[in-house]
Amino acid sequence: MQDLKNAPIGIFDSGIGGLTVAKAVIDALPNEDIIYFGDTARVPYGIKSEETVRSYALEITHFLLKRGVKMILIACNTVSASAKEEIIQAAGDIPVLDVITAGTKNAVSLPKHNHVGVIGTLATVNSQAYSKSIHAYDPTITVTQQACPILVPLAEEGWIDNDVALQTLHHYLDHFDESGIQSLILGCTHYPLFKDIIPKVLKDGNIEIIDSAESIAESAKTKLSELGLLNESGGEFRCYVSDRPQRFHELAERFLGRSLNGVEVVSLG
Amino acid sequence: MQDLKNAPIGIFDSGIGGLTVAKAVIDALPNEDIIYFGDTARVPYGIKSEETVRSYALEITHFLLKRGVKMILIACNTVSASAKEEIIQAAGDIPVLDVITAGTKNAVSLPKHNHVGVIGTLATVNSQAYSKSIHAYDPTITVTQQACPILVPLAEEGWIDNDVALQTLHHYLDHFDESGIQSLILGCTHYPLFKDIIPKVLKDGNIEIIDSAESIAESAKTKLSELGLLNESGGEFRCYVSDRPQRFHELAERFLGRSLNGVEVVSLG
Repeated sequence: MQDLKNAPIGIFDSGIGGLTVAKAVIDALPNEDIIYFGDTARVPYGIKSEETVRSYALEITHFLLKRGVKMILIACNTVSASAKEEIIQAAGDIPVLDVITAGTKNAVSLPKHNHVGVIGTLATVNSQAYSKSIHAYDPTITVTQQACPILVPLAEEGWIDNDVALQTLHHYLDHFDESGIQSLILGCTHYPLFKDIIPKVLKDGNIEIIDSAESIAESAKTKLSELGLLNESGGEFRCYVSDRPQRFHELAERFLGRSLNGVEVVSLG
Repeated sequence: MQDLKNAPIGIFDSGIGGLTVAKAVIDALPNEDIIYFGDTARVPYGIKSEETVRSYALEITHFLLKRGVKMILIACNTVSASAKEEIIQAAGDIPVLDVITAGTKNAVSLPKHNHVGVIGTLATVNSQAYSKSIHAYDPTITVTQQACPILVPLAEEGWIDNDVALQTLHHYLDHFDESGIQSLILGCTHYPLFKDIIPKVLKDGNIEIIDSAESIAESAKTKLSELGLLNESGGEFRCYVSDRPQRFHELAERFLGRSLNGVEVVSLG
């Protein structure tokens, strides 16, 4: 048990967006060792077929399991939508949490909720994954979704609070003002970067913004605590990527919210 | 020779953006058979290492050569920048043209040119490929480059003439107004979709817009004519992709400017 306590948490994403999840986990669980895998050679997953996404996700799962992780966090919405069951099966006794379930649980637990808004990539929205997940908890909740394909490139360009970002968010979010949603789930790893500007765009100041990255970090903390597996002596962060793209460090540090050392490139598949 | 005349032209790109090149080639050479390969499973190349891009490009080159193409057009700027020499070597006697050389030749052939502007993806701009290519013709020409990472996603979202597109183009292009450029090369396969709006953003109405897709189509026509290899009885277009992404058809038809039938998914590597 002592060994498992000191084992790292595995987090993975199709690329570096999932570093917003790593950031939230480090903030919530500063004494845990973390292994992050970003599949930068094959990003983005959202435009790929479900079959392809599943085979990539299983390769990464095995990579993390070989490194002895005590828990796997699926930071990628596309993987959460298409491959969660396969990963749970592959992981055996190791608990697997995913951003979609975490964000959903957070939304449905808010009081007097009957209408939830969700923004995500085209792939996440088309998969209906958030609708299905929310309706599994409460089929009476109305879900209004909006795909926001421009937000990921804006986040990567660092345009997170300029006129283009504002105008883009107005295009995507203005219809929510009349819709009566009580919460808005940020259903993409990149979107936490817009968390400060979104409330300025939404006219209805009562809409609760649900950050899936924070939600899954809280779920992980609760789960590890339940299992008696909280680490008290760790705090190391290791980052593996399948390719080292241009601007990698600049982007990674923006998403992670701190400096990043010791990135290793590994080949999968 | 008759056989080679009737052989198809091979065109390839990292994804579907190169269909703007296919469109220009169909317009310029309506009687040619064309085989297009879009590496949709592994797009985008621009964020990948040069080594990875080279190995992908060679796989596609061999795919096209096996199908008996009489000419290869590299529609992808990233491949043109990193793998042109390797492809020329692999292709042997089959002529290879690339978008960077074609756009460059077009720019430097304009009268009294001493300052050229280039817009492209971050990878293309960082590679300095257009600067090198222009300076190989005339080292006295000043080249001013601008990376425009948001334009590809805007083109894919279909936001090619709305307020966000205008504002984004102002961010990227306004500095060209004072720069004294005489031409602006659209150094990315997606950018021809903004060809109508860019002159509205540029205050200097004398700046010549150079569309690399049209440039390479003209180069291909000239080359085939020189070699006596113009086809007079073809006109078939076949499209191969390595994955069938979501919205594929909608996007492909927007870029190709016509309807698209008979797309085949093939696995490389």
